[in-house]
Formats: sequence, C-alpha cells, structure tokens
Amino acid sequence: MKTDNPNVIGIKHMAFGVRDAEKALETYARFLDVPADTEITIFPKSKNKVALFNLGGIEYQLCESLDPEGRFAKWIDERGHEGLHHICYEVNNIDEALAHAQAKGASLRICQACQKYGSHPHPEGWVAFLDNDAGGIEIEFMQVYTPEQLKEYEAFKGI
Amino acid sequence: MKTDNPNVIGIKHMAFGVRDAEKALETYARFLDVPADTEITIFPKSKNKVALFNLGGIEYQLCESLDPEGRFAKWIDERGHEGLHHICYEVNNIDEALAHAQAKGASLRICQACQKYGSHPHPEGWVAFLDNDAGGIEIEFMQVYTPEQLKEYEAFKGI
Repeated sequence: MKTDNPNVIGIKHMAFGVRDAEKALETYARFLDVPADTEITIFPKSKNKVALFNLGGIEYQLCESLDPEGRFAKWIDERGHEGLHHICYEVNNIDEALAHAQAKGASLRICQACQKYGSHPHPEGWVAFLDNDAGGIEIEFMQVYTPEQLKEYEAFKGI
Repeated sequence: MKTDNPNVIGIKHMAFGVRDAEKALETYARFLDVPADTEITIFPKSKNKVALFNLGGIEYQLCESLDPEGRFAKWIDERGHEGLHHICYEVNNIDEALAHAQAKGASLRICQACQKYGSHPHPEGWVAFLDNDAGGIEIEFMQVYTPEQLKEYEAFKGI
C-alpha cells in the first residue's frame, strides 16, 4: 500500500468528549463488551476524569472535564453534543512525523494540559497536536516510550 | 476480560460525517498514511458519497450526503461541525447481540437507507442500529456474511 506518512504505525487511542464519564461508561458496559467495573481516573493537571478501556482492539478514553471551562466541556458546549474529540496516532518517530506533516502544510496546536506546541513528554510518550482536523477530528501524534525512556519520564505521570 | 456483550468481536468500521468527501480525504492523505488516490464511491440508494480506506487497522468511511436533507448533512448542520457519526461493531450473531442489548434497555433506531428497524440485509452483512448513543456516537451492529451468504445477498449491493 502506498503511504503518505510512512511514520504512522496505528491508532494509539481515541478520546471522546463526554459530559459524565460514569454515565458514558455505563452505556458502553450495557450495550458493548466493556467491563462495568472499569476504573475511572482523575488527572489533576489536565483536570479530566477519564474512563479508559479497550474495545475492538482500540483504546477508548471517555473524557469528562472537571472544570466547566475545560477542554472537553468547551468542545461539547460548542457542538451541543458529546462525540469523538481526537484520535491519537502512534508514530515511529514524532520529529519525522511532524516534519512530514508540516512540509505538507500542517501547523501545530497547543497542548492544553502542558501549554506547549509540538513534541513534548507525556506519561506514555512524546506527543504533539496538529492544528488541522481531519474530517472534524483532532489529530494527535505519539511516539511511545521504550521501557528505558518510560523510567526517565516517570515524572510526567501527573498529566 | 469480563465482557458484557460477548457477541461483540471488534470494530467493523467508523463512519465520519463530512461536508466534502474529497477534501476530507485530502487531509487524511496529507497528514496520515492514507493513499491520496483512494476511490470515492457514490451510493445511490442512501445518496451518499463515501471515501473508504483502512488506517491503523480500522476501516474509515468519510461520508458526504449528496442531498442537503441527507443523514450526514443534517447531522453536521445540527452540530455545526463534522465528526464521527457512528461506529459499526462486528458481532458473531446479530439476533443475539440485539436481544442482549434490548434486555439491557436498548431500543432500535431506523436505518435511514432502508427505512427498517432491527436486523436487515446490507451489502456486507445484516445490520441494525441502536437508538442509544454511547458517548455521543451511534452504535451499529453488523453480522458479516459468510462467502455463501454474500452470494445470496448480492442484490443488496446498491445501498
């Protein structure tokens, strides 16, 4: 298959903006194959409450803003509806993936949790956001840490 | 893993509501690993124009309504934004999957292309829609045809 961005390995996760993470999880548990006792995690730095599970081989994140002015709350307010906020694509090399996208006209969007543009460390890997939605969906890139890098970046767990 | 709907095998496809299938495809081609020469198909019965490709192991469908009153056009108008319209989950047995979901309180939504509720034949398999969005996303179930069943249902190619 011809590929336009040879760096893209696959989908790291899909993040949904929801009003109530418990209620959204309950729907996934009732109608799909998601465990009802999935843990819901609070991320103090980004002020989000997230139900995280795997479904159909994909990591789903149901994200509720704890702050009414938060990233997901504002996104829902703007649309009047919950939905898929962004897809995070795993890449081999985030610097190359960004250089490729930028050479094709992409620009960078700020990471609202860290207030940074471009590649920067998150708990699981280096991430960056494009300022160019694809079919209405925000694009995030992540270069997942190796086990050694994960130890080095443990300080970023609180995002 | 504990599963609540043991019938769900995985994600069959994700359908995005877009204003312009060519433009949306162009964005996927520029920034992600999607071939720019992906074919765009017109479905006369449902009056949609669809760019279909695989990305990260998932089938993406970028769906543009040809009719301003069409399913995807109306959905975009309501939100003011493009986005993920529905996720189609592949199931082993659609009758059992629907019975399971209905026992847990689900109701059925009409298939806008066929004007039918519940399981009915589509080009690739039997499908049904729930009237219960999960985190803002419509849920479709599909029991994919065996090669023998596919021959039998060839008449449904025009959807």
